[in-house]
Amino acid sequence: MTGMDAFTYRPARDELAYTFGGRMPVAHVRGGDVFTVVTEDCFVGLVRGPADLPSEVCRMPYLNPVSGPFFVEDAEPGDTLAVHLAAITPARDWGVSSTFPHFGALTSTSHTATLQPPLEERVWVYGIDRQAGTVRFQATRSDHSVDLPLDPMIGTIGVAPGGFEARSTLVPDTHGGNLDTPHLRAGTTLYLGVNVHGAMLALGDGHARQGEGEACGVGVEIATTTTLAIDVIKGVTTPWPRLETDRDILTIGCARPLEDAYRIAQHDLVGWASALTDLEILDAYQLVSQAGRAPIGNVCDANYTVLAAIDKARLPAPGAAYGGAHERLRRLTSGLR
Amino acid sequence: MTGMDAFTYRPARDELAYTFGGRMPVAHVRGGDVFTVVTEDCFVGLVRGPADLPSEVCRMPYLNPVSGPFFVEDAEPGDTLAVHLAAITPARDWGVSSTFPHFGALTSTSHTATLQPPLEERVWVYGIDRQAGTVRFQATRSDHSVDLPLDPMIGTIGVAPGGFEARSTLVPDTHGGNLDTPHLRAGTTLYLGVNVHGAMLALGDGHARQGEGEACGVGVEIATTTTLAIDVIKGVTTPWPRLETDRDILTIGCARPLEDAYRIAQHDLVGWASALTDLEILDAYQLVSQAGRAPIGNVCDANYTVLAAIDKARLPAPGAAYGGAHERLRRLTSGLR
Amino acid sequence: MTGMDAFTYRPARDELAYTFGGRMPVAHVRGGDVFTVVTEDCFVGLVRGPADLPSEVCRMPYLNPVSGPFFVEDAEPGDTLAVHLAAITPARDWGVSSTFPHFGALTSTSHTATLQPPLEERVWVYGIDRQAGTVRFQATRSDHSVDLPLDPMIGTIGVAPGGFEARSTLVPDTHGGNLDTPHLRAGTTLYLGVNVHGAMLALGDGHARQGEGEACGVGVEIATTTTLAIDVIKGVTTPWPRLETDRDILTIGCARPLEDAYRIAQHDLVGWASALTDLEILDAYQLVSQAGRAPIGNVCDANYTVLAAIDKARLPAPGAAYGGAHERLRRLTSGLR
Amino acid sequence: MTGMDAFTYRPARDELAYTFGGRMPVAHVRGGDVFTVVTEDCFVGLVRGPADLPSEVCRMPYLNPVSGPFFVEDAEPGDTLAVHLAAITPARDWGVSSTFPHFGALTSTSHTATLQPPLEERVWVYGIDRQAGTVRFQATRSDHSVDLPLDPMIGTIGVAPGGFEARSTLVPDTHGGNLDTPHLRAGTTLYLGVNVHGAMLALGDGHARQGEGEACGVGVEIATTTTLAIDVIKGVTTPWPRLETDRDILTIGCARPLEDAYRIAQHDLVGWASALTDLEILDAYQLVSQAGRAPIGNVCDANYTVLAAIDKARLPAPGAAYGGAHERLRRLTSGLR
Repeated sequence: MTGMDAFTYRPARDELAYTFGGRMPVAHVRGGDVFTVVTEDCFVGLVRGPADLPSEVCRMPYLNPVSGPFFVEDAEPGDTLAVHLAAITPARDWGVSSTFPHFGALTSTSHTATLQPPLEERVWVYGIDRQAGTVRFQATRSDHSVDLPLDPMIGTIGVAPGGFEARSTLVPDTHGGNLDTPHLRAGTTLYLGVNVHGAMLALGDGHARQGEGEACGVGVEIATTTTLAIDVIKGVTTPWPRLETDRDILTIGCARPLEDAYRIAQHDLVGWASALTDLEILDAYQLVSQAGRAPIGNVCDANYTVLAAIDKARLPAPGAAYGGAHERLRRLTSGLR
Repeated sequence: MTGMDAFTYRPARDELAYTFGGRMPVAHVRGGDVFTVVTEDCFVGLVRGPADLPSEVCRMPYLNPVSGPFFVEDAEPGDTLAVHLAAITPARDWGVSSTFPHFGALTSTSHTATLQPPLEERVWVYGIDRQAGTVRFQATRSDHSVDLPLDPMIGTIGVAPGGFEARSTLVPDTHGGNLDTPHLRAGTTLYLGVNVHGAMLALGDGHARQGEGEACGVGVEIATTTTLAIDVIKGVTTPWPRLETDRDILTIGCARPLEDAYRIAQHDLVGWASALTDLEILDAYQLVSQAGRAPIGNVCDANYTVLAAIDKARLPAPGAAYGGAHERLRRLTSGLR
Repeated sequence: MTGMDAFTYRPARDELAYTFGGRMPVAHVRGGDVFTVVTEDCFVGLVRGPADLPSEVCRMPYLNPVSGPFFVEDAEPGDTLAVHLAAITPARDWGVSSTFPHFGALTSTSHTATLQPPLEERVWVYGIDRQAGTVRFQATRSDHSVDLPLDPMIGTIGVAPGGFEARSTLVPDTHGGNLDTPHLRAGTTLYLGVNVHGAMLALGDGHARQGEGEACGVGVEIATTTTLAIDVIKGVTTPWPRLETDRDILTIGCARPLEDAYRIAQHDLVGWASALTDLEILDAYQLVSQAGRAPIGNVCDANYTVLAAIDKARLPAPGAAYGGAHERLRRLTSGLR
Repeated sequence: MTGMDAFTYRPARDELAYTFGGRMPVAHVRGGDVFTVVTEDCFVGLVRGPADLPSEVCRMPYLNPVSGPFFVEDAEPGDTLAVHLAAITPARDWGVSSTFPHFGALTSTSHTATLQPPLEERVWVYGIDRQAGTVRFQATRSDHSVDLPLDPMIGTIGVAPGGFEARSTLVPDTHGGNLDTPHLRAGTTLYLGVNVHGAMLALGDGHARQGEGEACGVGVEIATTTTLAIDVIKGVTTPWPRLETDRDILTIGCARPLEDAYRIAQHDLVGWASALTDLEILDAYQLVSQAGRAPIGNVCDANYTVLAAIDKARLPAPGAAYGGAHERLRRLTSGLR
């Protein structure tokens, strides 16, 4: 492992991908590599002001592009890919959000189908001040404005699914994808089970920030320059996406209804906590029940996401997760922070 | 308003209530009163060790007792009752949790019915150290133990429902009830719509702490001594329970599936934020979407609870909620902290 | 048992009940009694034409009245009450349906909360021709009309819930209530677990017919004259409502989300089929999986209802359910058909 | 159109497909063609007796194979493909069902995750008597047996999804797929929106019969010989799968939770009924609410399926759906019945 920033991948418009799976790799990487990826925003950069209504300027399925996929040498089905988010920098000094017809949590949708007309489609443009670390909300129907903390994250990151599938980048599932959780910020390591030879990692859909649940269906969407470090943990499977930070271990459930996303995440955290500590399974269930958290990711996408989290300090004598991959990748990229 | 601690209500075993509604008041209080209520734990104090399996020592419907109801003078349907939790003190130096047959998030239940046998029923006893501010988890199948922060809360608090109903104290709904959120800690003001003459406030089901979602179905259950201050906001309706702290305003949705609880809470927060700031409704939706939080309360009770929260500092020029009731009740009880 | 029609109960307007539980009985009956109950429609008879918008002419909680409760002699907790619907006759030559703001399956609701305005509130009046056995749909925005089969049913029937509860008549649950299934037609026997001394049976909310799911939230609402025969099955519990017809046994699940209602009903039918036939439980699960039906009742009420049904001829060598109560009550009322 | 049976496609084992999308066509067909497809059962024919436990003899993702895809000449995105099921014949004199670990409606699953062990995995073999038209259930833990009506259906049929996706054949969605409804029997016409050039039709997963909801997760699985007639309706989109029989029009919703599947289907039926009759949309909503049915397909697959149905005779003066495609294809294949 060298930790040097091996390369920067900046996709041309027609290189952007709209599925996980079913694509040829754009580059090859290997465990220990640190590299930088430029990502476009979920609207492919086409929504730049109030007049750019997404349903008019964007065209299905050309939404939520990802950069990649990257072929990871030596990653095979049955392994786990560790992806450390070392830095996520907004590529422009603005971000954009919107309502979108029949999409979002507080509207009827294609699936929660009603006979009501959609909410008005509207665009909000946010100013981003990287120095101040703020994102400015400006109301559209009054002069109100307020600064919110800048908290850049990657909304969509994943590997190719198994079973010969190719899934829209709008979908979160076991392979990752459109997870839409603010916990995918710099400093976090993501663990994904590898389903195909080379894993085929891709990412995009940066947010300058988002609320829990992403109620209107759209974060503060940004293009990013994102630096990653990766590792392959051989012979270790990971059924659902997991995260690790300096403080916490976290699991992610992707499902509808939302309680199944909660169940998946809690179930995986109980199992993980039990494996790390040798706690018997009901003891681990009990501890997670009292000490665990359950941050909601999205309640708008094709699958909802709920995380389960526990502070590593609340686990009695835990071993290092995935052989210490988080700590190792963090050190490898420490010069980048 | 005087703020003096008017009285302490300590119910005899046979005075405990198992419904909201359908009960005669145990005492009369009025706006500005500060008073103290002793609450029994959800197992009516009958589960004290590993041999006391809840399904054996407790008998339906004698679970989750509340103390009260208190008749609030001048509270009428169409008003809002403000209840400030000034202090919540564990009444004993231990708390208890358990699994319970076919109850909880990671088991099939009476409603998520499967043909599988239930998980093993087991009891965990926690030591509480009020000085240190800790709750000690002790594993049952190994020597592992760990201290968790003591964070006392009231699990069940509400008023009589409307429509001539009487609801089990196991149920959370528009009238409050078994909300099971850690945000009901000391320092929080709860707003409840009044449905019947006198409101009929009651509370119980203290937890020394709980995780988000209360995965196993049971918190660290404790008896408490809880001091409240109340106020009546005349002519203001509150359709779903709301909370206010020094930092945040919060709303609570109670429903199944879990996404409906999320929708209710977000919808109510958008409306509340709009009313406090004069933001147009889609502007408020947008702001809450980017700045809001969505803490999960319970994913085990008859209705699940999800909260929506926003830092008041993220609202542009907000007015005081409910005429400043939180600040007023907080001052009234400042000597008790 | 005599089978003679013991009496007719015709409630005055102010005798109508709006809860199950929390009410004094209007009359006493006993096993073997046949009696007739006049029921008002869900709008208390106040919606009679297009100008009578329900949200204007009705006032919460005075919706969905039931006639009763009837105290059933010798019915104790732990018993089952069998209620045979011998005849259901529309009391008028018209019925009425409507949309209702934020209520129904194809609209956002109080719980599936969105920021959209409600659908237009509108009333449909149906002509009922008892001779021809038809209900005439007449479009409101064109001249289209069509005759549908008259298929009278009782939407709401139940006993007092346990646990000191009183539940709105709008709610279906273990005690019965607003089940809203077309299977509650004449010829059906309903089995309900008894929760309180005297059972406290009540009924109302007749429909001239309804579609599966009651999509708009309102059937073809009618007042009825309904003749019942009842029996008490001592010492036999019934956790969820069950039905029996000459052909089928059916179970009813009441829950949200809808899959839990399905699970409850299938689970109860598997157990019932196993008990009637001595089939081992997984064998019964297999048989119900291939031979069972799952008619949807409502997808609009506080709990959704799904039934599970199997033709008795598909059960190998079944015993008589509830000691032959259906057959006995059917014979008792054979002169009434 | 000729109506002659153009050819029979009998796939070799290694030609079976496990996705919709991402596959090269096995043959070309065109509107008016009648052809026959041999389909393997969902277990690829590997489960033949009690000792062949599916989790042991099958290997993911080699479950639920389909035969195809067939490239349909002149079918373009924006068109609708009509597929008439002319005949479905069991290919063997037995069928098979099973429980499967953590799969089915009355068990916890990978998504409704619990800590309970799975139900016992077990296989049931059914004898099929085509002459008698029966399927014989034989209990595994007793001597009970019973004959059920033979009612052959195709569980999985669909086209390639759009958006560059390839979806597992285990999934039902807008493109069709694992719909698992008994309404896909001979005599039914299926309408599917075309997403890609050539449509890419494929089918498999025959059932000798199944109950509504397919509670145990597995029907009476059979290989079939299935004869189809197809047509392309140019310039007509179909967002969700639809069916037509001599009596009914039906729509299919695929989603979780189950109420969303219900909403999708009812919403699509209201729109379809409105379009066929010129009924204003709320008038159509009202009519479907009183006259519609809602048969459940599956409550076990990746998406649940619920249908909405209405007898064409209940629609005032309906036009012919899809230009009379059902009637045309039915006549074309009338000699095959």
